[in-house]
Order: sequence, then C-alpha cells, then structure tokens
Amino acid sequence: MTPPDRPASAESCHAGLSRLLEPKSIALIGASPDTAKLPGRPLAYLRRYGFSGAIYPVNPRYREIDGLTCHASVADLPEGIDLALILLGASGVCEALEQCGQRGIPFAISIAGGFAEAGDHVSQARLAEICDRYSIQLVGPNCLGLMNPRSGLTATFSSVLREAMPRPGSVVLLTQSGALGNAMLQSFLTHDIGVHAWVSTGNEVSIGVLDLLEHAIEDEAAGLVLLFVEALRDGARLLPLARRALARGKPVVMLRTGLSQMGRTASVSHTGKLAGAPAVWRDVIRQAGVIEAHSLDDLVDHAQLHECGALLLSHAATQAERVARVRAAGAIGVVSASGGQGVMIADSATAAGLSLPAFAESVQRELRAMLPPQMPVTNPVDTALFADGLALERCCRAVMADPSIGTLLLTVSSFANDYAAMIDWLCDLGRSARDQGRLLALTYLSSSDRMPVEMRHRLQQAGVLEMPTQQRIVAVLGCRRAWWARVLAAQETPEDLPRVKAAGLSREASREDRDRSLEVRPDSSLGDPRSPGGAQGDAAGFMQRASVPLVPERLCQTLDEAIAAAASLGFPLVLKVASPDIAHKTEAGGVALDITDEASLGRAWRGMVETVSARAPDARIQGYVLQPQMRGGGELIVGCSLDAELGRVLMVGAGGIWAELIEDVVFIGLPATRDEIREALSRLKVMAVLRGARGGPALDIEATLALIDRLGKQFVAETWVAEVDINPLLVRPRGQGVVALDSLVVARD
Amino acid sequence: MTPPDRPASAESCHAGLSRLLEPKSIALIGASPDTAKLPGRPLAYLRRYGFSGAIYPVNPRYREIDGLTCHASVADLPEGIDLALILLGASGVCEALEQCGQRGIPFAISIAGGFAEAGDHVSQARLAEICDRYSIQLVGPNCLGLMNPRSGLTATFSSVLREAMPRPGSVVLLTQSGALGNAMLQSFLTHDIGVHAWVSTGNEVSIGVLDLLEHAIEDEAAGLVLLFVEALRDGARLLPLARRALARGKPVVMLRTGLSQMGRTASVSHTGKLAGAPAVWRDVIRQAGVIEAHSLDDLVDHAQLHECGALLLSHAATQAERVARVRAAGAIGVVSASGGQGVMIADSATAAGLSLPAFAESVQRELRAMLPPQMPVTNPVDTALFADGLALERCCRAVMADPSIGTLLLTVSSFANDYAAMIDWLCDLGRSARDQGRLLALTYLSSSDRMPVEMRHRLQQAGVLEMPTQQRIVAVLGCRRAWWARVLAAQETPEDLPRVKAAGLSREASREDRDRSLEVRPDSSLGDPRSPGGAQGDAAGFMQRASVPLVPERLCQTLDEAIAAAASLGFPLVLKVASPDIAHKTEAGGVALDITDEASLGRAWRGMVETVSARAPDARIQGYVLQPQMRGGGELIVGCSLDAELGRVLMVGAGGIWAELIEDVVFIGLPATRDEIREALSRLKVMAVLRGARGGPALDIEATLALIDRLGKQFVAETWVAEVDINPLLVRPRGQGVVALDSLVVARD
Repeated sequence: MTPPDRPASAESCHAGLSRLLEPKSIALIGASPDTAKLPGRPLAYLRRYGFSGAIYPVNPRYREIDGLTCHASVADLPEGIDLALILLGASGVCEALEQCGQRGIPFAISIAGGFAEAGDHVSQARLAEICDRYSIQLVGPNCLGLMNPRSGLTATFSSVLREAMPRPGSVVLLTQSGALGNAMLQSFLTHDIGVHAWVSTGNEVSIGVLDLLEHAIEDEAAGLVLLFVEALRDGARLLPLARRALARGKPVVMLRTGLSQMGRTASVSHTGKLAGAPAVWRDVIRQAGVIEAHSLDDLVDHAQLHECGALLLSHAATQAERVARVRAAGAIGVVSASGGQGVMIADSATAAGLSLPAFAESVQRELRAMLPPQMPVTNPVDTALFADGLALERCCRAVMADPSIGTLLLTVSSFANDYAAMIDWLCDLGRSARDQGRLLALTYLSSSDRMPVEMRHRLQQAGVLEMPTQQRIVAVLGCRRAWWARVLAAQETPEDLPRVKAAGLSREASREDRDRSLEVRPDSSLGDPRSPGGAQGDAAGFMQRASVPLVPERLCQTLDEAIAAAASLGFPLVLKVASPDIAHKTEAGGVALDITDEASLGRAWRGMVETVSARAPDARIQGYVLQPQMRGGGELIVGCSLDAELGRVLMVGAGGIWAELIEDVVFIGLPATRDEIREALSRLKVMAVLRGARGGPALDIEATLALIDRLGKQFVAETWVAEVDINPLLVRPRGQGVVALDSLVVARD
Repeated sequence: MTPPDRPASAESCHAGLSRLLEPKSIALIGASPDTAKLPGRPLAYLRRYGFSGAIYPVNPRYREIDGLTCHASVADLPEGIDLALILLGASGVCEALEQCGQRGIPFAISIAGGFAEAGDHVSQARLAEICDRYSIQLVGPNCLGLMNPRSGLTATFSSVLREAMPRPGSVVLLTQSGALGNAMLQSFLTHDIGVHAWVSTGNEVSIGVLDLLEHAIEDEAAGLVLLFVEALRDGARLLPLARRALARGKPVVMLRTGLSQMGRTASVSHTGKLAGAPAVWRDVIRQAGVIEAHSLDDLVDHAQLHECGALLLSHAATQAERVARVRAAGAIGVVSASGGQGVMIADSATAAGLSLPAFAESVQRELRAMLPPQMPVTNPVDTALFADGLALERCCRAVMADPSIGTLLLTVSSFANDYAAMIDWLCDLGRSARDQGRLLALTYLSSSDRMPVEMRHRLQQAGVLEMPTQQRIVAVLGCRRAWWARVLAAQETPEDLPRVKAAGLSREASREDRDRSLEVRPDSSLGDPRSPGGAQGDAAGFMQRASVPLVPERLCQTLDEAIAAAASLGFPLVLKVASPDIAHKTEAGGVALDITDEASLGRAWRGMVETVSARAPDARIQGYVLQPQMRGGGELIVGCSLDAELGRVLMVGAGGIWAELIEDVVFIGLPATRDEIREALSRLKVMAVLRGARGGPALDIEATLALIDRLGKQFVAETWVAEVDINPLLVRPRGQGVVALDSLVVARD
C-alpha cells in the first residue's frame, strides 16, 4: 500500500455503499473464460458461489463465457448496472473507468497494480479525476476486490476462493492489503468464522477503510469490524467514527502496521518532538475505544470470540444486568490437569485484568466429593489425573454453577483426556453457558495437542472458545471485557461517567472544585508567550483567547533594568533568555532559578550572557526575562500539534526534565470530550504527584482539566496555529489553579 | 509444587549425577505387570525403548514380570544398583527409601504425591531425614521421574511415552511440574526435538533443578537447558551457576511461573518496599544471563532454534569471526509475498533489536531481473504473485548470497506457493545456510497455513527454522542473538568489557575518572545513619566500613540549639525529624528544605513539630537534625535487602519522589561483578540525568559505581544486616563523588 495522493472528499460517502456491497448486477470488464488466469476467476467464483444478481461479462474477444452473453464494450451494457469490476491491467483501467462513468455505473473496482504504489502518481491522479467527474466510487486500484458471502458476491480473484468461501456471518473484514486479507480469509475458513463482507481497499483513490467502517457501524448485520491498516487517509475521522461504534456497542479491532518506520516530525516544540507517531497512534486508538490488535492471529482471536457468542450483551434486558455480566466476565474459574498450568493461568489472567475468585462454598463441597483428600479445591483447581471423563464433567458443571464465575477455562491434554468421549458434554456445557451470557473456554497443556479441526468447529458452534494456548484466551477475553466496560461507561449518564471511567481522578475532585476551577483567568499583568518567527503578536492573543493564565514577567535588556524589575516583582526570581531562535532554553543555559537577591541576580545575568553566547552564538537575543519564581505545585507539559495522519492532537505529560526521560506523556485526539481528557490524564504517572504523593498537598486537577479542555478547543478553532507548547504548566494546590511558566506558539508555514 | 521444607545441603551434589541420569542398573520398587496402571508403565517403557542397563523389578506379589525375575524385597536385590524407582503410594515410600539406604542404593525417585504439596510436611521431613542418614539423593516426591533417550532410560510413567519417546539429542529439560514436563515432551515429539535428559523434580526434597542445572552446565553433551520453575530452593546459587553457563556459551532458558502471586515482603526500608519479587526475579535473571521465557511455546521455540543449529558458534575459529557472525545474525533479509507482511516483519524485527539492512547492489540487480519493473527491490522485498517457484528460489538464493544478511526470513502461503514443489530447494538452501553459520527461517502469511508435519521435520533437519508466525521467529532470534552478544562480551578481556557491554556508560568516564572516584571517603565530621530499633550503634559502623560518605549533620532538641548549629553549618540547610519509628520522613512531614535564614529555620521547626505530631502521634522523637542543603547533582536511592528466594540483592534507582512513581529501579543479585553493576545501572532512566541531561553537568557515575560495589560487598560480609537504605544518595558533578543525605540500616531479627 502507498499513502494516498489526494484527500478524500469532505462529504461522507457511506450512505450508498450498500449498493457496492450488495449489488443487483455486476459487470466484469476484461472477463476471461480461462479460469486458470486471474481475470477468469471472478466469473467462475460468482457462478460457483451462486451470486444472486445479474452478471455481465465484457470482452470484445468473446461472444459468450460460461453460457453468459459477453458484451463487446461497456457502452453495450444495459442501464442500471450497480458495480463494474475492472479486470484489466493498469494501462487499460482509466479508459474503462471513463466508459463506466459514461454508462452511469456508480461503483467500480480496479484490481490492477502499477499506480502510486509503483511510483505512477500521474495515472493514479487520473483515476481520481475520472471518479470525481462521474461521481464514481472506486475500490482500489491495487487491491483484491471484495466479497459478500450472503449474496454470493465474489468481486475478487482471491485464491482462497479456489478452495472454499467462508460462510455468511457477521464479521466485516477491511484490509488495505490484499494478500493479508487473503491470509485472513484462509484463517476464517480454518476457524469456520462467518463473514458479512470483506473489502480490500488497496490504494484508496476513492473509497477508504474509514468509509467502509462508517457503513459497517450503521449496518445492523455487521457485528464485528476487523481493520488491517497500513496508513489512514483523513485519519481525523477515526475518532468520531469510533465514538459512534462505541455508543452502539459494536467492537472495532484494528491492526496497524508500519509504526516502527514512522519518522518523528521535524518540530520546534517539545510537544512536536515527543509526538512520535507510534505513541500518538496508540493513545488515540485507545481514546477512540478501538481495540488494538498486534498480529493477524489477534484479529482472528477476536473473530473467534465473537463467533462463539461470548459477551454478547444485546440479550441482557437491563443496564444493571449488563454491568453484572461484564463484571462476571472478568471472573474466571480454572479447571486444569496441572497445578503448574493453573499458576501460569493465574499469572496471565492477572496481567490481563481478570481475576480468579474463590469458588462458592457449595462448589467447593462438590469438588471435594470428586477429588482425593490431598487435592485442594481452590481456584485454579488441579484435577491432576484423578478426574476421569465423568468426574471432569462434574467438576466443570460444578464450577459453571458458581454464580460468581463468568468464564470457565478448562485445560485438557490428549494424554489425560479422551477428546472424542468428551466432545458431547463440552458442547452441551458450552451451549448452556452461552445461553446464560457466560463462557466455556477450552485450551491445552501443550499447544501441540489441539483437538482435530472438525471437533473445534463443533465446539465453536456450541459457543465454546477453543484456542491453542491459555495466553491467547486470557488476552482476548481481558481485552474484550475492558472494551465492554468502556461501552457500558459510555452509556451511563454523563454525571455517572467520570466515576466509572476514572475513579482515581474523580475521587480527588468534588463538583464544587470543578466549577470553581473554571474561574481561573489571565489578567492584564500577564506576560507574553513568544513565538519564534512570525505571528508573534497573535501568540499572546491565542493564549488569552484560550484563557491560559501566564506568569507575570518583565523583559530586560540590561542588568540595571533587571535589578529595577526585580524590585517590583519581588524575590525569588527566575531569569530566562528571550530569543526567537532558542526553543529549548535549559539546554542553552538560558534558565536560572533561585535568584534570591541582587547579588545572585548579577551572577545569574553574567553567567547566562556568557553561556548562551557560547552555546547559541547565532541566536538573536531579544533580552532576558525575569519572572517571580513560583513554588508549590507540580509541573506538567501541555502542548498541541498536528499529526500527519490523525490530525490535531494534544499532549499532556510530566513537566521538567522527566518529561523526556521517562516519556510520561499521553496524546489526546482533538476535539476531545472532557471525559476522554480525564481518562487520558489518569494514565499519567505524574498524576500521583497531582493527587498529593508522599505527603504533598493535592493539586488542582480540575483546573488542569479545564485548561486542557480550553486549549484543545482553541487549537481546533484557530487553524493558523501549527504547534503550542506550555512547558512547564505549574499546577498549584487545589483551588489555586494553574499557571503557564513558559509557552510557545508556532504558526503554520 | 510446594516450596521446599528444608534448605539444600551446602555442598554441591552435581558430581555424581551422571550415575542418576545414566544408571547401569535400575530397581523398580512396586513394579506391576499391568501396563494399564501407572506402576506398570516404567518397566514396559524400559523394555520398549531398549534400556541398556539391568532392570530389577521388586514386588512380593510376583515371581517374574515380562520375563524378568521379580524380587520380593529391596533386601533381596544384588549389590551395586545405581537407581531405585519407587512406584509405591505415599504411605509406602519412607519404608522403601529406608530399605534402599540399607542396601546402599545411592539414587532414588519417588513419584508419589501426598507429601508437602498436600500439606503432609511430616512425611516429607521424614523422607529428607532418610536421605540425609543414608546419603541417598532423591528425585521427588510428587514428580513424574526422569528420562534419558540415549540409553533408553525411562524412569517415569509419563503418558507421552505410550505414544513415542523423543529422539536422543542435546536439549536438557528440567521441570518442577510433572504435567507440564509431559506437555513439553509432547511438543518435542511434534517438533522432532532431540532430548538429552528430562527430569521432573517435584517437591525437591533432595535434588533440585539447580543441582541438575549445575550438572548440565558441566555436561558436554547438554547443548541447551530449559527450566520450568515454580519456586527456587537455595536461589542464591542461580547467579554463580548462570555465570558459569554464560562463560561456557551454554544457553539456559527459564520459564518462571507464579510471579503474580508473589507477595511484597513486609519491609521497613524503601528498598524493601520496592523489592516486589517479580521485579527482583526479572532483573537477577537478566544479570545472570539466563534467557527468560514467557510461555511453554517460548521454551519450545528456543529448542527449535537450537535444533536447527542456528547460531551455533562453536565452529567459528576466532573471536572476530564469532563477533561478526553474531552481528550478522541481527541483520535479516525478508522475502514475502505481501508488502503488508513485510512491513509487519519490520515492526517486529525493530522491537526485537534486529535490523533489515538494504540489500547489496549486486543482490538488488539480481532481484531486479526477476521482478516486474514496478516492484521495488528493497528489504523487505515483496515478490507478490510475480515469483513462481523458480523465481522465488532465485530470489532467496540471491538474498542468501548477500554477505550482510545473516538470516533470510521467507514467508510463504499455500495459495501462492506449491509447498511440495519447494521443499527440496528449501532444505538445500537451509543446509548451505547452516554450513555458513547463517539461517533460513520460514513462516506463513497465515498461521492456519503451515506445511504438513512431515515437511516441517524435513525442514528442521535441514536447519530451516519453521514457525507458524513471523513474530515468534523474530522474537526467538532477537532473544538468542542478544544472549550471544552477552556471551561474547563475557569472553572479552576485562579491559574491553565495559565498552562492549555498556557503551553508554563507559563513554562518560575515562580511566582517569574511574581511579579518582575511589578516593571518596567519609571523614570524622560525618553524621550517623540511624537504625529504627536495635543495633543502632553499629549502623554507623556499617556505613563507615562500606566507606559511604555521609553528609555532616547536627541533632538538635530545641530551636535554640538548631539556631546555634545553623550558624556553624551555614545556610541553606535541611531540617529532618529523627525518630526510630519514622522510616519515611517526607510522608510524615518530617523534611523541610530551602532553609535560608534564621527566620525560615524557625518557621520550618515549628511547622515540623506540629505536622509530625499530627501525622505520627505515637512516634518517639529523638530530636531534629540539621544538615547543609547540598545542591548540584542527581539523586539516587541505593539499598540492600534479602529476597526470600534469591537471597541478597541490591537495588538502585531514581531518588526522590520519582523512585516510587515510575519505579525506575534495578535489582542486582549479590555478590555482583563491577560489570554487572555497570550494566544494571545503564538500564536506569535516571542515568540520562547522571550523564548530564538537558544542559546539566555530567555527574560522578564512577563514584556511584564504586559506592554500590562497596556497599554490596559490605552487605554480603555483614550478615547481621537485613536491610540498608541510602535515600537519597546525592551524585555530584564528575570528580566530586557521592554523598548519602539520609540512610537507614535494619538489623535482622
């Protein structure tokens, strides 16, 4: 895949995508009777898998193909065709697309490679232009096309379909890469996962994965969306789309590749320098409520969990029931033939945020009756070799009867268990668990020891989650459970939300604090933020419009001026160099703290003039700034910048020297809700300082939150600003607000 | 498994373990002709797998079993039997062991459960006593026994052997758990991994995994040691044993479970509180050069890598060749049928410390000739569907011919490749790669798409590393390569070592600095470290003997005394409460900084008296201590404590409030070498401050290193000390040494 050459049109194009995914008619431009060749495959597939619509092969070389009339050209096609699949090589695509436009065909797919991904940006721009001119929506080029098993639509030459087509289902698979989409389909066949639609979007000249995501969110028949993304076009759409999916309780799982290659953007501000794209991506994904996958197997695991119907809360009648069910889903009961395995599961479960509660007393009694006296009946319970088939079934049914257990994780082994003899009761137990909104999960002592694939399909149909290792079960379960908790929190009333989502934060701040903190406003005595080069006047204006409280300061040209200013500001003071060419004053020796009297001011002034001229000999020095040295509080860095892919983002982190050392920063996609900001803040280690670590006072978290909210909104509103940096932002004790001790505004070029 | 009841005898018992693992004769006490029952299995296995020694069944109920004379009792056995396998239930084990002792049998195995793991500590202690009395070395109880395929020794009832025995090889598998050992054997069969020995050690009354590890390190036929550990007995032996393995270039891979359950020990000191065992374990494992595994599959992956002979450096003639080979091993060339897959591999490789260098120009030319012009010939190279079998082989051979590429990672897919047609050239390429000390690795677009198991065995025999996902290949390769770099570094001359192992550190400090830093010594004006309760006098002695420079201080009872002391010490000052009951002064409000004059001293004094009496009303207050406030430098926390499992450990970390917030700490097992300390320090984030972050001066890293070295040695020497805490340790600018601003010594109970 290659990053797209042109931005998407602003208006959304999801509305009409049903006609793309469920066309009543399809034209195959360049169709061939030779099914051994790629252009011959789609027709063969459409026939084999019983496409329910009309098929129009187009190829001047044939009169008919496989009993269907073959048209000589697009112009010969009847009116009203929904979709054209262009099977021609790159050189023929533009002409064919133009003809589709003339014929009024609204959707097209071009599979040919050889466009932007191969360096031919001119041809790709031409495709885009034709799409615009005729309002054609195009999938590709450089893709494998798309597939919809329910209507037998196989507008693709995917090699997997030579073997079989995944059965119809509710998983939507959107992949920019064709080959990896194919690989996923193969896994879907292996795991008998039902597909609602697969689209490989290739170079995304017109239709991108986010358009298809938008469609899937609205599509009732789509139950789970899996995305494989190499680079997002118009990525700022991700956050609002993901919020909508979250509100509907529709899980979106995304595997994003290429993060290791992302360059750090050349930036002036601290924020910009810290804005390495992988961190931005990870944080914004999380903010959006998108589930992050780390491998293709992760994606498949989520599909498996979805298929077995675990944690589908739609049948739960009330919100309270849903909350109880999600809570229980985190409580797993473990039945294993090895104590060592039980301990390993406890390790993984803890890491995944799951718990192993003690079994209810009645359950312990039942287990006690089945196991020899020396075997403990704790959770995890080790049945060793003492449980034959019948006893194991009884143990499992006993644990499943424990109301505090949401998931039973059973590990088996072919040398201790007879798989064929146990499959029936496993399926039975799986079905009854699913009916109760609970889950039976099955794994093995050794990943080399799985049941045969036919048994695994039976288990899956019965709602049993089977995976080769306990780690994968625990990881996917922990991940989905955290996501459901997020969904439920988003469905709470706004008043309840902060308590649910960020208890640590909301405990600190009463509603009273929250209101009061908004009163912090800059006054006329405040200093000016500086901007290196250009738009300097407006930098101060930006900070004022965002209501950022700034520390008072005086710009001095001589030591005598400074001594006079010090008298009016009062000691202790901070001295800083003022230069449009020095963004990082500390490194340049341009910051002196702890100036307590005239003598130390003199020493600091002379030392700074000398050091700065040595370290930054070419910098234009506007003078030196004196500020009162404010004590008491914690330091943050807050900034805004433009991510190349995801658009406007805000960064908050530990201020001072630790910001860069420990990278204790979070990124927030803009515009953000107050709750999203609160949740992001709660992930910072420096929050412990703000809450009052080691005997220190609790600091003004609510004022911090309000400031971040205002700054983010203002950054979104004032599009002339490229970067903003407040470093440090001093967070004072609760009730005393925040103050920016230094700041920077960078205008766009 | 259950933590052992008694410590191992101090002397090592590895010397004679050959007789345990390769006995010339074995007695089966409680043997049975019924091979359907557990006690019947070992004899059946010994016969089936052709045990080369003599077999003596013992059971009064039979005259003969399977053609062998069955003895009525142990007393009837001939002289000189090497090993007794006791197949009796728990109630019969002690008597049988006693009889073995009387008969002079040196080694025994007891498989029976029902001892300490089931709460019967009395019977287990009795077993230990019998072992001591007769100098019997016992494996178990509560274990599966042991196995040595080369001599057909199957002193186990492992169910896996009903199917087949792993072939003889060089992998040593040591598992405390029997069931998971069994699971590993099953994986070994699946992956055709050759086993030198497997021992399941169970409750470790006498022989533990570390005894067997010691034996395996000395055993030339053991090439790789895999350990599955639930709790180590006498864990302080791990570090010296691991150093020996490292010196011999013998990889030791350990999977340690139960870390999530480890409690934090109840401790007084900061060090003790931070000494959560999982972190100690991880750091000491790393210090020891033991490779950490995170799952059973990880262990198997390491065995697979070992089996295919990759990175076996023993054939490299010179150290320079080895270094070059290890360096090249990190450089992978990727040939994939999907650009998306290539990008994912680049992501994983980067995370694993591997690189994808550009192909040599000659290689690029060859690839260019085989791929269509629009396909780039970068690394990873995407052959898409353009490479048929022959072209793919040529691409692979071209990349393998690149001298800068150590590993070729090829991804295939059954829908693009004909597995049967390619297996021959894959094996050929694998063999020639192995002969050159390089590696061919093979994986798939989809993990559901593996080659059949017979093909996989052929690949492995040809030295091809085949795994279901690229992530697993990249992870195991990156891990083993880092380990080899460590081995080579350990083999360098001591002068070269610091540069190789911790370039970041050694760059900072010249040899000159190193010598000078050792001159820092405490003088008679230094203050006393305090110890809460007991041994107070000797706390100061300990610090002096460890040559810890302490800040001068005065203990004052009244404000007037403090004012007088301040005059002699000079401002600025720090005021601290002195109390045997307050270990954490900051939290109690017992530390005041920035006391610049008499007025601020008065305010601080009164405030502290009030706050401390409110926050710690029951503390005995010995007075208040004044110290000069030292500026300029960085703060560390340094401490020593006793880990319940691993023994004496030292902790270093970022000092002040950040120590606990970000847990920027490393643990070092004691006694440690200077290089190990240096390497551990290099992993701290706070090292950036010590090196001179953000324009600050470079601090005295060498003095820090020397102090840590001295403190660790003194802590090992003075066994009466349970915990030591120096917090903060002020590290001053280079050449100015370090000084302890506060310290604590806790005596053992």
